[in-house]
Amino acid sequence: MEKPKWVIAKEQAKRQAAQATVWLFGLHAVRDALENPKREKLRLVVTRNALEKLGDAVGKAGMEPEISDPRKFAAPLDPQSVHQGAALEVKPLDWGSLEDVALGDGPQPPRIVLLDRVTDPHNVGAILRSAEVFGARAVVAVQRHAAPETGALAKTASGALERQPYLRVRNLADAMTSLKDMGYLVLGLDGTADQTIEEAVAGKRDRAVALVMGAEGPGLREKTLETCDQLVRIDASGGFGSLNVSNAAAVALYAAKG
Amino acid sequence: MEKPKWVIAKEQAKRQAAQATVWLFGLHAVRDALENPKREKLRLVVTRNALEKLGDAVGKAGMEPEISDPRKFAAPLDPQSVHQGAALEVKPLDWGSLEDVALGDGPQPPRIVLLDRVTDPHNVGAILRSAEVFGARAVVAVQRHAAPETGALAKTASGALERQPYLRVRNLADAMTSLKDMGYLVLGLDGTADQTIEEAVAGKRDRAVALVMGAEGPGLREKTLETCDQLVRIDASGGFGSLNVSNAAAVALYAAKG
Repeated sequence: MEKPKWVIAKEQAKRQAAQATVWLFGLHAVRDALENPKREKLRLVVTRNALEKLGDAVGKAGMEPEISDPRKFAAPLDPQSVHQGAALEVKPLDWGSLEDVALGDGPQPPRIVLLDRVTDPHNVGAILRSAEVFGARAVVAVQRHAAPETGALAKTASGALERQPYLRVRNLADAMTSLKDMGYLVLGLDGTADQTIEEAVAGKRDRAVALVMGAEGPGLREKTLETCDQLVRIDASGGFGSLNVSNAAAVALYAAKG
Repeated sequence: MEKPKWVIAKEQAKRQAAQATVWLFGLHAVRDALENPKREKLRLVVTRNALEKLGDAVGKAGMEPEISDPRKFAAPLDPQSVHQGAALEVKPLDWGSLEDVALGDGPQPPRIVLLDRVTDPHNVGAILRSAEVFGARAVVAVQRHAAPETGALAKTASGALERQPYLRVRNLADAMTSLKDMGYLVLGLDGTADQTIEEAVAGKRDRAVALVMGAEGPGLREKTLETCDQLVRIDASGGFGSLNVSNAAAVALYAAKG
């Protein structure tokens, strides 16, 4: 019996996703990826100068570097990329399922950040850094509207991309519902909310908490708003203006800390 | 008697600074500046389409717009600027002296952010936004190592550049000493500090507080470190990684709120 078309299409999509690769660039991002044993590494393109700076990391990763002329650097990067003579082709990291990450052990009560169409790689990179600093279990985004794991994201994330679980899910509301079923308190950030984050978590700091951030301007989508346990705002005294989304995420993680 | 050369040079530098202008661009930044009565406006270059979108703001500002062909936009902008057909030449805002701003009245105990060689316009723009949201009196940077008031900064600041005092001083340590003399508690952010911000301000939240942020990597300069009343760190549980400087400033303002 032949496979139905939809099965073939699904298998094909899966194969393509597995084949998708990313070129990381810049000495810092390349070194971090080389030193990450969980990172599947394919090609390393470097100038002699960069190879020297990467030192031990190349040999330890078992990579055979391709030496490139700095004047016509051989990696297929955006011409504006500040690559510093180092580029590494890798597979996106596999962080496992939302359940695995959300229910895993950790020293503090679990925190998770969900992104509702926050797509700017600089913001997502900064959010990954903050998530790592505040010990969040994961940053979760919607597959089709997530910042892809690119060299620019890796550079802004400043190493956090290698260490901080960053999951892409098919549907954000479904992920939120799953988290609620697992016992998470799901709080949506909304500047017009009555309660502050601190008020919402008062007496519940030992619970698992998920913080949902919307894009600047549109904010949380209708379906996202409806699925939250509660809407909360950041306690601010100025009364004017609005925070950049990565700044809001950092403050929210701090305000909700366990 | 003729003026000594150094007096002439000083007067010349002052005249040049007063003459320096900035081209703001993008519908949002241009509208914010048009609507700011304190902003000295020189030339408005717009496409017909952008003029329509700016609507009332142009007439209310008393500006005579110069209509430009969108295919060869007449304002002297960086070719990569996303100008949306609107550019406005302005003078930098004059926020007055540090003393005026630091000692002015306000609803909350005063907070000030000092930047020690934080120069990236995206970070400074985000910090201006956070300073406004948390009601800080001013953001202060060193003249020679400050992010200049550019179109890119204005765009990232998303309106906050028009409303949030942003002062450039000649010497940061001198400004810190002045603030201490005015009664400010001057806290330097340093990841290796023993005390957290919350510990340092416990029982002193009604005092005036200045928060000093260093550039990522080098951190605070020696002279800056020495001049702080105390070094403090952000209370974080992850134990890995570091915050982007604008994220750190937002969390610090939140943690030190009055």
